[in-house]
Amino acid sequence: MNIEKRIEELGITLPAMSAPAAMYIPVKQLGNTLFISGQIPMRDGQMVHPGHVGEDVTLEEAQEAARVCVINMLAAVRYYLGDLDKVKNVVKIQAFVSSRTGWDQQHLVANGASQLLYDVFGDAGRHARTACGVNQLPMNAPVEIEAVFEI
Amino acid sequence: MNIEKRIEELGITLPAMSAPAAMYIPVKQLGNTLFISGQIPMRDGQMVHPGHVGEDVTLEEAQEAARVCVINMLAAVRYYLGDLDKVKNVVKIQAFVSSRTGWDQQHLVANGASQLLYDVFGDAGRHARTACGVNQLPMNAPVEIEAVFEI
Amino acid sequence: MNIEKRIEELGITLPAMSAPAAMYIPVKQLGNTLFISGQIPMRDGQMVHPGHVGEDVTLEEAQEAARVCVINMLAAVRYYLGDLDKVKNVVKIQAFVSSRTGWDQQHLVANGASQLLYDVFGDAGRHARTACGVNQLPMNAPVEIEAVFEI
Repeated sequence: MNIEKRIEELGITLPAMSAPAAMYIPVKQLGNTLFISGQIPMRDGQMVHPGHVGEDVTLEEAQEAARVCVINMLAAVRYYLGDLDKVKNVVKIQAFVSSRTGWDQQHLVANGASQLLYDVFGDAGRHARTACGVNQLPMNAPVEIEAVFEI
Repeated sequence: MNIEKRIEELGITLPAMSAPAAMYIPVKQLGNTLFISGQIPMRDGQMVHPGHVGEDVTLEEAQEAARVCVINMLAAVRYYLGDLDKVKNVVKIQAFVSSRTGWDQQHLVANGASQLLYDVFGDAGRHARTACGVNQLPMNAPVEIEAVFEI
Repeated sequence: MNIEKRIEELGITLPAMSAPAAMYIPVKQLGNTLFISGQIPMRDGQMVHPGHVGEDVTLEEAQEAARVCVINMLAAVRYYLGDLDKVKNVVKIQAFVSSRTGWDQQHLVANGASQLLYDVFGDAGRHARTACGVNQLPMNAPVEIEAVFEI
């Protein structure tokens, strides 16, 4: 794999990262496993499509937001590893979707994330997944996604 | 342990599985750890007791649904491993319960899953657990359960 | 590190634990990884600040509750290990915050947990984290926190 090249081919620019200052961090390593903090769809300091899916956010907007979560996740992992080619497998993601009660297509939102991980990493990007709705996410995010990667 | 025999004694028939076609998969292995995707209580192509617990689903129905989630989980693991006797430990489950706000017995719903895992695997089936309520699950599932197994 | 001493310096008394009787358990070990069950803020048999944050629980109360979750987590790990100095790293926490829809400061609630883990374990206590809101937690808990530790 040449993941950096693949990301470029997909027309994706990963945002710049700076060293975390907080008592929690974007990536923590345990052996060859990376635990990646829940990512929200911030882009250039703005929340992409804030609100609740099925109410003020459409399915398509939420899928785009899920994709931005993955872009932020990849940026965090690249910052941590220096090079995304060190990623051996995407192991698992968990997608929380801020949802109007009664709107039940959270799995389709999560597809926006899963598709991009597959596009970037190929078969190594196929992962276990849980998608569920919640009534509220931090900073009114429409989606939040955490992950486990193998390096 | 002879897990296959134990499942038979419990009168449980695991559903047939077919190869996953999607960019996410039911089971992903990292070393000797299996991460199992969130399971919903589909049986014969139908959702078992769809809706919200404390509203249109009773505690007893939700416990039955949690049990069906575990049956689907075991089917996924058997399909992946070929043989459930390769399971060394149930490490952890996370149970999301679609709940009416104000109904707060999610832990009792999760007991339906925990009991079956214990019945099947004995002491090796005792696991760490988190149960929480959510306002909505995909396809109006009443419960969704993900897991980590050791092989 | 001398964690027991550090806990004492912080003025924290960990509650006594007894052997788990259920089919689920507070801590399950896989290799050098501890998976710790979701902790709720019970103190002396009472729920600390029950209810929904942004409605009947303030941010400050929820942060205190998050801190109690961590105290219970440390008690469970100490009971399991015999000695908290065996903890090598706090790897990850997941914080579920019972929230009024529209109240979106769950990350600030989680800070109550993250700060205490950092105060106790120092740099080893810096962790990956996900915080999200939910509409209901078991026994009307305001916060529930699960964790992964390395030993």
